[in-house]
Amino acid sequence: MVSHNATIRHATRKGTLFYDATLRLLTCPDVPTILSLIRELADYEKSSDKVDATEESLARTLSHFDASTSTFSEGFAKTLLLTDTDGTVAGMALYFYNYSTWTGVPGIYLEDLFVKESYRKKGYGTLLLKELAKEVLKVGGKRLEWSCLDWNEPSLRFYESLAVGAKKKGEWVGLRVEGEALGKLALE
Amino acid sequence: MVSHNATIRHATRKGTLFYDATLRLLTCPDVPTILSLIRELADYEKSSDKVDATEESLARTLSHFDASTSTFSEGFAKTLLLTDTDGTVAGMALYFYNYSTWTGVPGIYLEDLFVKESYRKKGYGTLLLKELAKEVLKVGGKRLEWSCLDWNEPSLRFYESLAVGAKKKGEWVGLRVEGEALGKLALE
Repeated sequence: MVSHNATIRHATRKGTLFYDATLRLLTCPDVPTILSLIRELADYEKSSDKVDATEESLARTLSHFDASTSTFSEGFAKTLLLTDTDGTVAGMALYFYNYSTWTGVPGIYLEDLFVKESYRKKGYGTLLLKELAKEVLKVGGKRLEWSCLDWNEPSLRFYESLAVGAKKKGEWVGLRVEGEALGKLALE
Repeated sequence: MVSHNATIRHATRKGTLFYDATLRLLTCPDVPTILSLIRELADYEKSSDKVDATEESLARTLSHFDASTSTFSEGFAKTLLLTDTDGTVAGMALYFYNYSTWTGVPGIYLEDLFVKESYRKKGYGTLLLKELAKEVLKVGGKRLEWSCLDWNEPSLRFYESLAVGAKKKGEWVGLRVEGEALGKLALE
């Protein structure tokens, strides 16, 4: 997986232009930036009103690097940040390890993939996905998975455009218990 | 969360009958049993040919308790086992922590819920779900999620019958890169 300060040069999908992007994992000072990216993505997904995350909740629950002690705080998800040559954190991939009993090994579930609007078309989304694919193989996993809103055609087209192809998982219905219902199930 | 040897008495959904069931987490000697339950579930899901898991891969990747050292080996998923009064491991819930950027906290994703056919109608499925709901709350989470095959009507009816109700997640399309495509994405 990417180290805390790896610079990766990569070509755009359009041909001859090159961009330098830096990939690294979350550190404490990035938390406000992450919350801002989460809000931008939720806004794009027409769900701004559903964001309950706060800087405090993210800092408490996301894995992050603490520069003062040079150690990781292990949380429930990891965040890969992509910094553009201009120094802006232009995108992120927030993910956690999932598990398949059919494969009998872990995989990665990509919770959020986001590149700020003005930094698109540089291949940054693909670069983030590629890094996660490497991490899946590194942990001996077999699958990289994520979800996309069914009306989000630009994203669905992007995923279809990946040279490797991303298969849609048919047949499965997602189910969820949350809020009051969760408390009731736990405590009744 | 359940300790390694907690006996929980609970009532069936049908009224006055009581059963004693023991809930505990995976230990090394349970691995062959787990593989057998995974295969029974896959068979029920008409997917026996898709099970690549082996005792070795499960032991290497699932969290489990090692009695010889009284310590946990931290893996990528946890397994809650339910033992019937007759001593049989009658069911299991295999799960991992997931994450929602909208809630800003972790949750639990239930990968496999299975109760052996001859041990159904005793409320064991509900008992396993209830224990996971408790664990979600314990880690400060907000959601318990899982997936169900859209043609699996008995299971969908069971989930609908939960007093609390499980909401179907509409709108989202699941996507996946695996196998050769994953290697190609990682390495090209």
